[in-house]
Amino acid sequence: MNDVQKTESDSVERPGAKTSARRADLRARLVAAGRAAIAEGGLQNLKARDLAAAAGCAVGAIYNVFDDLDDLILRIGADTLARLEHGLAGAPGPAPEPAEELLRLSRGYLSFARANKALWRALFEHRLAGGRPAPAWYLEDQGRLFALVEAPLARLLPDEPAASRVLLARTLFSAVHGVVSLGLEEKLAPMSEATLEGELERLVRAFAAGSTARPCGEASRKD
Amino acid sequence: MNDVQKTESDSVERPGAKTSARRADLRARLVAAGRAAIAEGGLQNLKARDLAAAAGCAVGAIYNVFDDLDDLILRIGADTLARLEHGLAGAPGPAPEPAEELLRLSRGYLSFARANKALWRALFEHRLAGGRPAPAWYLEDQGRLFALVEAPLARLLPDEPAASRVLLARTLFSAVHGVVSLGLEEKLAPMSEATLEGELERLVRAFAAGSTARPCGEASRKD
Repeated sequence: MNDVQKTESDSVERPGAKTSARRADLRARLVAAGRAAIAEGGLQNLKARDLAAAAGCAVGAIYNVFDDLDDLILRIGADTLARLEHGLAGAPGPAPEPAEELLRLSRGYLSFARANKALWRALFEHRLAGGRPAPAWYLEDQGRLFALVEAPLARLLPDEPAASRVLLARTLFSAVHGVVSLGLEEKLAPMSEATLEGELERLVRAFAAGSTARPCGEASRKD
Repeated sequence: MNDVQKTESDSVERPGAKTSARRADLRARLVAAGRAAIAEGGLQNLKARDLAAAAGCAVGAIYNVFDDLDDLILRIGADTLARLEHGLAGAPGPAPEPAEELLRLSRGYLSFARANKALWRALFEHRLAGGRPAPAWYLEDQGRLFALVEAPLARLLPDEPAASRVLLARTLFSAVHGVVSLGLEEKLAPMSEATLEGELERLVRAFAAGSTARPCGEASRKD
């Protein structure tokens, strides 16, 4: 008996569960259809009519399982973030040196952006109608990603207060994102893969070295 | 006699000049109308029909003085870059310390972006049809801006080869742009003006310190 059959038979005794499973299934199909549409043609390729056709439902059914298209786009974004998080997971074993770990994460981010350009772009291009802020559940999903950056920062800057480190992780992410983003889009100059990777490394190494830099005289006094 | 009358009377003897002045005037009016449209509602607010009405010409006349709307948008972008360059001009007198100068430029960039949000966004959102690269004249306009960053980098890193410094200026700009961009759009978290300015300063100071950092042992050996 496969999972779908199991859900169906379970629901004979629990009618609410059947409806709930059907809704979850439709949501998943709509997220998959939306993801495919964005991957193919960006956010502007996301049309309610096409999504409904791809998911095999009426257009109105979309709004039974999502508040609006913004809500669906946020779910697709959360799915992209989860894939990015999975791609950035480190190897098991002892943690590498903080600067090396920051570099590994930055390179992973560049690779992900390069391989998933349209979905990655959509994360930043999408603005909620009326300038609403992103909902708490979405910010929590983002937060798990930033935790990956906070961990090596905590080892690099053990005296940094936690609140300041949380901000710094977002600042470093933003800086890396700027280099990846303008580089991949070739906004400033044509840029080979090797050059972009080299520049990203220069930025991250300078940041890591400069964040811990103390005037040499000061270090000497401590010796 | 004002400038317009002068142009008109001059052109009695040089009919080509009259046409040329009329074309230049129409171009300027269309750029002004386009800039106002983008400032009001972003790139998607730029409509040929509205521009023609605002500039007092037929829709077809737009395409007599610009290759296409992309060409007009690039001219508006060049105008934005010129305003940014003007805003970033330093005070006369001796050049400040390189790190302070980089910080001054970064803060100037943040202020400009904050005060001209839609026009600044349009610089990065606009993509030429068919993925064409930006024309040489536009890249030259951009280049003058990066020269402002290259000057303090040359003093910070006197041994850096020129080609590498040219790249590094774009990398630092991209990093600063990332922090400004995700911060102003509040993509990662709500962010006060003071916090954003503080984070920008942390990035630029770490970058400047880390770019010149040598292990203290090495410096000692040189002493």
